Amino acid sequence: MPYTPPDPSVRATMLDRIRFNADGLITAIAQQYDTGEVLMLAWMNREALDETLHTGRVCYYSRSRHALWRKGETSGQVQTLVDARLDCDRDSVLLLVNQKGVACHTGRRSCFYNALRPEGIVEITQPEVSAEDLYGTA
Amino acid sequence: MPYTPPDPSVRATMLDRIRFNADGLITAIAQQYDTGEVLMLAWMNREALDETLHTGRVCYYSRSRHALWRKGETSGQVQTLVDARLDCDRDSVLLLVNQKGVACHTGRRSCFYNALRPEGIVEITQPEVSAEDLYGTA
Repeated sequence: MPYTPPDPSVRATMLDRIRFNADGLITAIAQQYDTGEVLMLAWMNREALDETLHTGRVCYYSRSRHALWRKGETSGQVQTLVDARLDCDRDSVLLLVNQKGVACHTGRRSCFYNALRPEGIVEITQPEVSAEDLYGTA
Repeated sequence: MPYTPPDPSVRATMLDRIRFNADGLITAIAQQYDTGEVLMLAWMNREALDETLHTGRVCYYSRSRHALWRKGETSGQVQTLVDARLDCDRDSVLLLVNQKGVACHTGRRSCFYNALRPEGIVEITQPEVSAEDLYGTA
């Protein structure tokens, strides 16, 4: 079913209930809505979550760039929102999304590819797309 | 298949590669290994992750109590580790677990029960266990 955005006043009321941390952020987990695969963990500020709920297109907050991070804006690997769910202490959100292509900047479907195994850290998946294809070259 | 712990020297090498934040913590996502349900998000310090990898029983770090938090120690709702996977920037870990009973302190299977919907915040699941049954009463 298509995502239906809450109207601005409902969004504002919901956002007021969220417990952003001292930096104004919450953790956000992206999960592929149909397969259940956990794709990535990132952060959102109030503005990023508001935009995500409004547009149905996932927007994070980049802690390194100190700016909104519209997922897929450069790479085309966008996340379409299906449902957003806040946890019990209201400082983390689970995003059920439809991921186009790959979530990880390494070209892998999921960021969680380093398994901690008896033999050490094992990469359990390989890139499906090259960085060149994701971000282009000069 | 049963979980096989890495030996102490392998664990130490793996833990050295993890990027703990300024407070010495990383985020940890618990996911039910067979159904894919995301159960909760919590935090781990080096000691908590080391214990988890050693024992195969999930141990977090409680930011409110400033102490190790052996999941289920009081409630009995333990998480048995199946696999642990570090993300691409090595500051978040996905734990595939077998959750006994419920993960959430509210008695719900998952902590992510507050859906952000057009009509507002909607509780999409109800408690399966009472707080009394989870934590006892005087």
